Amino acid sequence: MAKIGIIGAGSWGTALTLLLHNNGHEVVLWSIIKDEVEMLKTKRQHETKLPGVVLPGDIQITDDLKEAMDSKDVLVLAVPSPFTRSTSRMMREYLKKGQIVVNVAKGIEEHTLYTLTDIMEEEMPGVDAAVLSGPSHAEEVGKGLPTTCVAGAHSRETAEYLQNIFMSPTFRVYTSPDMLGIELGGSLKNVIALAAGTADGLGYGDNTKAALITRGIAEIARLGIKMGGKAETFYGLTGIGDLIVTCASVHSRNRRAGYLLGKGYTMQEAMDEVKMVVEGVYSAKAAMELSKKYEVELPIIEQVNKVLFEGKNAADAVNELMLRDKKLENSQIPWE
Amino acid sequence: MAKIGIIGAGSWGTALTLLLHNNGHEVVLWSIIKDEVEMLKTKRQHETKLPGVVLPGDIQITDDLKEAMDSKDVLVLAVPSPFTRSTSRMMREYLKKGQIVVNVAKGIEEHTLYTLTDIMEEEMPGVDAAVLSGPSHAEEVGKGLPTTCVAGAHSRETAEYLQNIFMSPTFRVYTSPDMLGIELGGSLKNVIALAAGTADGLGYGDNTKAALITRGIAEIARLGIKMGGKAETFYGLTGIGDLIVTCASVHSRNRRAGYLLGKGYTMQEAMDEVKMVVEGVYSAKAAMELSKKYEVELPIIEQVNKVLFEGKNAADAVNELMLRDKKLENSQIPWE
Repeated sequence: MAKIGIIGAGSWGTALTLLLHNNGHEVVLWSIIKDEVEMLKTKRQHETKLPGVVLPGDIQITDDLKEAMDSKDVLVLAVPSPFTRSTSRMMREYLKKGQIVVNVAKGIEEHTLYTLTDIMEEEMPGVDAAVLSGPSHAEEVGKGLPTTCVAGAHSRETAEYLQNIFMSPTFRVYTSPDMLGIELGGSLKNVIALAAGTADGLGYGDNTKAALITRGIAEIARLGIKMGGKAETFYGLTGIGDLIVTCASVHSRNRRAGYLLGKGYTMQEAMDEVKMVVEGVYSAKAAMELSKKYEVELPIIEQVNKVLFEGKNAADAVNELMLRDKKLENSQIPWE
Repeated sequence: MAKIGIIGAGSWGTALTLLLHNNGHEVVLWSIIKDEVEMLKTKRQHETKLPGVVLPGDIQITDDLKEAMDSKDVLVLAVPSPFTRSTSRMMREYLKKGQIVVNVAKGIEEHTLYTLTDIMEEEMPGVDAAVLSGPSHAEEVGKGLPTTCVAGAHSRETAEYLQNIFMSPTFRVYTSPDMLGIELGGSLKNVIALAAGTADGLGYGDNTKAALITRGIAEIARLGIKMGGKAETFYGLTGIGDLIVTCASVHSRNRRAGYLLGKGYTMQEAMDEVKMVVEGVYSAKAAMELSKKYEVELPIIEQVNKVLFEGKNAADAVNELMLRDKKLENSQIPWE
């Protein structure tokens, strides 16, 4: 039994709270939003973000960050990626040295091009930063449907400790040392999900979508490997696996925003319609900065940027991808 | 402009006939089934297998194999995999030396464990065997929806020749020397599609399916690399790409048969209901033979075999996969 504080009570934080409670741990769930804390305390469920998933009465819910962090074996940082820096800064005051903090959000910070654990390590010196990622819709984890994830950490010891804490009969956890690959795959896949959604909006079929997913992860891998991530990670659960689940989902905001772009909406109209943060729009920009910095060609992500920020027609962007120079599928495999 | 004979007038042969005709080639379409030839000649479409896709009048349709093969630059072998051997044997009589024949079917022969081009080379000595594969539902290619494929051949020259012949504004073709990887991925993915369908039938969600797809291609890659295929191929269009499109499709016989297994049907009941050849059932057996021969662990494919041939309960099979020993995601990546 471990003592765990969940920092952030969105759909994912709430689903993980229930999972960890069911695994026999003592869990405290924190939110900065007083109304959210009140709702969770009185209704025992997140009525807007994870309706129907009931939190048992012995799960403590609080808006007191000190209380959520005090004497915990593990902290889970589950705030949306734009709040990773500000929340880490708030947490610094109560952080004990060597504290394990697991990031479960996805994103790359614009301009700094930091991953979320990079940010955590900058704002919380002495933290033992880790990451949990994979194809895991919160709604399905909340319902106990079989799900797999990967726990990445700097040390094998921390990764295996987290594996033991999170693993259950319906939640299988693998371990990995490749934190960078996990975080890059998890954030950049949202840009490809925008492209896949756009293809759906244009009325294209499963062939087109499978092509965008497959060639999309190939370009993420090309970039990620050059940055120091491992190929196996991009082709694993936190890369292609998470991309598949995002592109299949009718719930994904990124896929939905792409769908509207395919229907002829501008980026602003699409974002207004979706009403929430469309992570892939920010990651698309960051990816282009990374493309230049590391001199890696990203043809799909480049076309997504042109559609998003230069008003390029979506069908023209797809046509351009189809009619590029004739190529080998992989330039690494030699002809005999 | 090339002269092309299409051997086999199922949905894929018919769709490729139209594609190649639209690319400006002179195409003859052959079927051994006289009724099929009659239907195609009079109705100018395959009313049962590819309804709505109309073949222009200047496409020749025949049941005369000599006529279909005579003086052709390229032959496309599009018969279902169980007929690859018998059809190749019939073709031998009319085959000119160095004739390019492109296999577009998927399968591994039981007992011999031959790929389809292995069979072609055995039955048609002197053939220049090649393969075209990728995420390409015939229905969507017939409608001209954007699609990608890979042309694999022994020589770069043949692969690039085929790339030029097949490529169009909506059909992008890459080349590859890894014929073995292309054919293994294309046939073994059907076993994973059975597993993904089973998960759907059990009422599991997108998380489970993405996990089965991702871990499934990982085990196909482990086996295929040991057999001499390339990792990049299994993670490319003909491997994971084709697997994604198969698992997403409501038309796939393999996914459908798996769905029925998940609903509690026996293998025989599921095959009776689907009414057509369920390729994955045969490939599942071949995969287990390969697993033993090459000493590679295939946990998902092993469970599929137990459900298919030993009457194992499908939910128990999934539970067993979820509760295996705790593992690293990839044993190749070292901890620092």
